[in-house]
Amino acid sequence: MLTKTNQPVLVVGSVAFDQITTPTAESGRVLGGSATYASIAASYQAPVNLVGVVGNDFGDEHLNRLRAHPIDLEGLQTDSSGPTFFWSGIYGKNFATRETTDTQLNVFERFKPTLPEAYRATPYILLGNIHPALQHLVLDQISGQPFVAADTMNLWIDVSLDELNRLLPRLDLFVLNDDESKMLTDESNVILAGKRLMEMGPKIVVIKKGEHGSILFHPDGLFAYPAYPVTGVEDPTGAGDSYLGALVGYLASQDRTDSAALRKAILYATATASLTVESFSCDRLEQAGRDAIEGRYQELLQLAAVG
Amino acid sequence: MLTKTNQPVLVVGSVAFDQITTPTAESGRVLGGSATYASIAASYQAPVNLVGVVGNDFGDEHLNRLRAHPIDLEGLQTDSSGPTFFWSGIYGKNFATRETTDTQLNVFERFKPTLPEAYRATPYILLGNIHPALQHLVLDQISGQPFVAADTMNLWIDVSLDELNRLLPRLDLFVLNDDESKMLTDESNVILAGKRLMEMGPKIVVIKKGEHGSILFHPDGLFAYPAYPVTGVEDPTGAGDSYLGALVGYLASQDRTDSAALRKAILYATATASLTVESFSCDRLEQAGRDAIEGRYQELLQLAAVG
Repeated sequence: MLTKTNQPVLVVGSVAFDQITTPTAESGRVLGGSATYASIAASYQAPVNLVGVVGNDFGDEHLNRLRAHPIDLEGLQTDSSGPTFFWSGIYGKNFATRETTDTQLNVFERFKPTLPEAYRATPYILLGNIHPALQHLVLDQISGQPFVAADTMNLWIDVSLDELNRLLPRLDLFVLNDDESKMLTDESNVILAGKRLMEMGPKIVVIKKGEHGSILFHPDGLFAYPAYPVTGVEDPTGAGDSYLGALVGYLASQDRTDSAALRKAILYATATASLTVESFSCDRLEQAGRDAIEGRYQELLQLAAVG
Repeated sequence: MLTKTNQPVLVVGSVAFDQITTPTAESGRVLGGSATYASIAASYQAPVNLVGVVGNDFGDEHLNRLRAHPIDLEGLQTDSSGPTFFWSGIYGKNFATRETTDTQLNVFERFKPTLPEAYRATPYILLGNIHPALQHLVLDQISGQPFVAADTMNLWIDVSLDELNRLLPRLDLFVLNDDESKMLTDESNVILAGKRLMEMGPKIVVIKKGEHGSILFHPDGLFAYPAYPVTGVEDPTGAGDSYLGALVGYLASQDRTDSAALRKAILYATATASLTVESFSCDRLEQAGRDAIEGRYQELLQLAAVG
């Protein structure tokens, strides 16, 4: 984080309320959503332009959590016709499984991402985990040649595979987890899955393996790094969104997307996601601050240092 | 492998015939056993003294595979009263499961490791995966203050837990896989499992996570490293034995057991095990030679290199 530029990151995704049950605790109704996690994570590295929608139940106490960071909210629509997107889920033993118990799209059902004029030339675009049709719609509104990164989930591979496949060639960076990578490529080996994904359009692929770290597939070669050694997972929700936010935020902060910058970006992403999982909602991520992220980045550097 | 000493490694374990069925192939009856893999792997780094037993069916064609390496066979007993230890097993889809279909202990049933006089002061001891009672018996015969490393398996945790628990304080280094570490400590988090194991006696613990790399627990701090990106697994049998052989062999070659040496040793172990899994038996490991191991070590150094 030495040489800072002021390149902003455009984050598009869901802003939501979650209600989460883990093997040991219940969250109650808490702030969530892919864009929420990604924006806060990115904002530790670069200014953020947020595009999303909230409903008539999203008060100042929630908006202020975003306002506390360098996150521009001009693109955050308020739709007073209904409540905010709501999701609830239950994690199984050791967080090995996650079951959705309720999804109420609410105002998100009518959401059409509309980029304010000032956002259209943002040089770094982060398409959070939303329907691929909405991810396309964002790219249709941008100008210039931004660096475009996107996330996805198993649901879209199941129900919107064509739109997802058409999105891949529009991406510089595609980030997904190992199960999704295998599902999307029909490969059982994660290295082969990553190589296959590279042939499907994106210039760069990152496969996240949770506690086992992540792998970068880049034209210049592979990079793999272990996870931060977390021992107190409270809630993994938002880890992937925080990871991608920090990753793209770091690239924007350096205004570089070469392999060396990506390797460091993956360490910042790993450090940031490790904070997110230590609490419900964005609590730990918000409170941690830049020093905690930098501290874990330095620890990660030492973790895999060889002589 | 720059500064070579001539410190030998004493390897004790099984020498066996295996018959292995994978999702795509059948091995036939092939050379196997924990001491076989560990000895050949270690022999690329340091001279080996092998202690084990073979039966009346273990001919020169098999002995010559060991003789082709710097492996001293004075400690390899031949028991002509019966055949060599035989094991057969079937791997499930993607090698996610392994089922034993036959175990014939044969001459191994009466095996009592006896160290030739010349072996008793070997400075590096590798106790391969055999009954903990036999591992104790080896340690009872050694003189001096050697560096003692040991492997185990789920079977011994099930049937010989007391003897295994009494072994741990006699170890400098305990190497086991993640499932075994969780089984032995009742922890579900591998970091907590490693920390708990450190309290159970061994000075140093390494937890192997297969394709996800390994973690070193050392009084000086944690070290984690990804696996070599293997895409063509033919048979994982012997990977763990090869890993431990290369690890202890490297430490002997440097005559150092500090954290910096252990980190490099783990990369050599990872590189060596990645060759073993690319064929049935020790075929690939034997043919690869030192250059292939050194090549993969260098690739591994680059794999997780950050700026």
